[in-house]
Amino acid sequence: MSLGTTEYQKRIVKTKQRMVEKGIEVLLITDPANMNYLSGYDGWSFYVHQMLIVIDDEDQPIWIGRNQDTNGAKATSWLYHENLIPYPDDYVQSDTKHPMDFVADILKQIGQDKRAVGVEMDNYYFTAKCYEQLRKGLPNAEFKDATLLVNWIRLIKSDTEIQYMKRAATIVEKAMMDGIGMINEGVRECDVAAKIFHTQITGTKEFGGDYPAIVPLLPSGEKTSTPHLTWTDDRYKKGDSVILELAGCYKRYHSPLARTVNIGQPSERLQSLSGIVVEGLNACLDMIKPGIACEEIEETWRKTIHKSGIVKESRLGYAMGLNYPPDWGEHTASIRKGDKTILQPNMTFHLIPGIWLDQYGFEASEALRVTATGCETFASLPRQLVIKEGALETNFN
Amino acid sequence: MSLGTTEYQKRIVKTKQRMVEKGIEVLLITDPANMNYLSGYDGWSFYVHQMLIVIDDEDQPIWIGRNQDTNGAKATSWLYHENLIPYPDDYVQSDTKHPMDFVADILKQIGQDKRAVGVEMDNYYFTAKCYEQLRKGLPNAEFKDATLLVNWIRLIKSDTEIQYMKRAATIVEKAMMDGIGMINEGVRECDVAAKIFHTQITGTKEFGGDYPAIVPLLPSGEKTSTPHLTWTDDRYKKGDSVILELAGCYKRYHSPLARTVNIGQPSERLQSLSGIVVEGLNACLDMIKPGIACEEIEETWRKTIHKSGIVKESRLGYAMGLNYPPDWGEHTASIRKGDKTILQPNMTFHLIPGIWLDQYGFEASEALRVTATGCETFASLPRQLVIKEGALETNFN
Repeated sequence: MSLGTTEYQKRIVKTKQRMVEKGIEVLLITDPANMNYLSGYDGWSFYVHQMLIVIDDEDQPIWIGRNQDTNGAKATSWLYHENLIPYPDDYVQSDTKHPMDFVADILKQIGQDKRAVGVEMDNYYFTAKCYEQLRKGLPNAEFKDATLLVNWIRLIKSDTEIQYMKRAATIVEKAMMDGIGMINEGVRECDVAAKIFHTQITGTKEFGGDYPAIVPLLPSGEKTSTPHLTWTDDRYKKGDSVILELAGCYKRYHSPLARTVNIGQPSERLQSLSGIVVEGLNACLDMIKPGIACEEIEETWRKTIHKSGIVKESRLGYAMGLNYPPDWGEHTASIRKGDKTILQPNMTFHLIPGIWLDQYGFEASEALRVTATGCETFASLPRQLVIKEGALETNFN
Repeated sequence: MSLGTTEYQKRIVKTKQRMVEKGIEVLLITDPANMNYLSGYDGWSFYVHQMLIVIDDEDQPIWIGRNQDTNGAKATSWLYHENLIPYPDDYVQSDTKHPMDFVADILKQIGQDKRAVGVEMDNYYFTAKCYEQLRKGLPNAEFKDATLLVNWIRLIKSDTEIQYMKRAATIVEKAMMDGIGMINEGVRECDVAAKIFHTQITGTKEFGGDYPAIVPLLPSGEKTSTPHLTWTDDRYKKGDSVILELAGCYKRYHSPLARTVNIGQPSERLQSLSGIVVEGLNACLDMIKPGIACEEIEETWRKTIHKSGIVKESRLGYAMGLNYPPDWGEHTASIRKGDKTILQPNMTFHLIPGIWLDQYGFEASEALRVTATGCETFASLPRQLVIKEGALETNFN
């Protein structure tokens, strides 16, 4: 099960169609997920500037990266070796030379400096300085915003991509069960995180895991009032609740999942919140199908939980799949008011109705695929608050 | 052992001194490591736009972030709660609203919009779009480049920071030994990576580990010709060499380390390369002391290995310590030709003389602290190529 050159070439064709629609002739890709999507390139080198250049009338993209990463591009991408252009190491984190000066020089050398150049304006790996140096180096280019141009193509997955995400789901189910299985009074948070990491990476006997784009998020106790804390080396206390948000990852494709656990009997307010959130989540899963808009899912959620008086201010979910740190989300469609994206088969979302109140919170989520007639979740684990009593957990295994 | 408010206040004072030197009145910090350094804020929320604002005549910085992360800022930072300003969720990954529009509005409201505003132009988390929106929203501000302003302050560590890095070193020694101990013919790469992750996060009985800013890098076989590949689920073969580059992390402070292993008897060329690199590394460790320049270390390296005919094109090391993905390096001083930074006590570097040739490579590195009279490495493990014979490894344990 691997992605052949044909799949990459189809992606290039789709990218060029979008370029034509946007009036872009030369596309500069700095998002590592988009670089991987179009070239297969996979390495932890995105901490230095690097780029993939798609030119409207060239068959293959050009990869520009640090010299020592060129053999990595040879090993992982489908590109001809002559399309890999290394820059010397004195461009790395220097205050006198910038890698975008090198990129501008290459574009001049190959006669692409007077064209309509698309750049990913709001991508982590395209800094303000990158844009400033390119503008200085390419005074005759016309710059256009190409933010999310490739991300929107990624929205609908191929069957191979779905298979990757199913493998990621097998991993996340195991990791979630291992994490929940271990959480108990007196156990250190870091030991639970370590167990989860081990399962995420070792994967199954049939296939290994890749590193997820976000580490396990494990707020506990009062810190469940906020979603993005990681872990400490504190020990869990009786009565603590713990939110687990984590993903399985296979060949950079993710399947995220969130669940909430309580050590011992939960408060009434938390149990009530669990019921409300899971009811809302289930109502959404029942109505998701091709042809509806993302905002209709949010409407269903809102109407379902209305009677509880709880209002969720933040978005309910987002498109996800292939990615690198710091995010597994694709930054395209969001499940929220005003998002008119129409669902189509093989779109994949993380539906995550988390509620964070002043002193406590609850999360239960599902990663899902839109099917021909509805939707299916990638994982299948019970959604309600898990209650751990001593060494036993109820309503889970 | 924790950082008190006094240490944060000293950091703010130093930051304001640099601001005066650079003619900056309002400093916008988007680097998550710099945000943590000045405020203590720690959460995996840097995948959305967020910021710390240091104003020349205000005692405390202002934190601006996503609404749901405000409780995380309350839990982890030393800032007064009234200095935490949340933005609504419809600013998140939206094509109509940008978080920097919100930031510009706040700066106007508090009368800071007509001042000299410093921005971290070449930071991952300050995109081209961030700068464009700020310029639109603050037409009367004078923008100045504040890239690395805080990073340069981070270069010299306090005694508490050194203690954190020593704990990180205890973790990386264990993780390296566990990884090397497990590498053998027939073992899957992902299972070794999983074991390393487990040790990195579980830490020791006395203290747990934090997630390193870079995952374990584990190229094997011919892929040792390049440094930044991660792992696959392939099984190691007899004769394979494996490079391990990984860090221990404690409260976001890193201690990185690289070693190389061969399964069975190594080739003569690899054994020879190991000897050359370790000789060069040792020569550098012998001469590092306060008062010399970074480029002198590179000169020592170059002269020591000159006779071998091997030339290292890439830099020999870099300042490191506190950080978040995607890099544990601080992006300030580099150990390379032309870097005039003068060493001072409690500067900390990763000295990593990796050599990557066409079909093979070798890495041995040390994280080190400049002392009053010389330097000391954080970890203490043998540096030569580790030869694994069956279940036994020689010259290591």
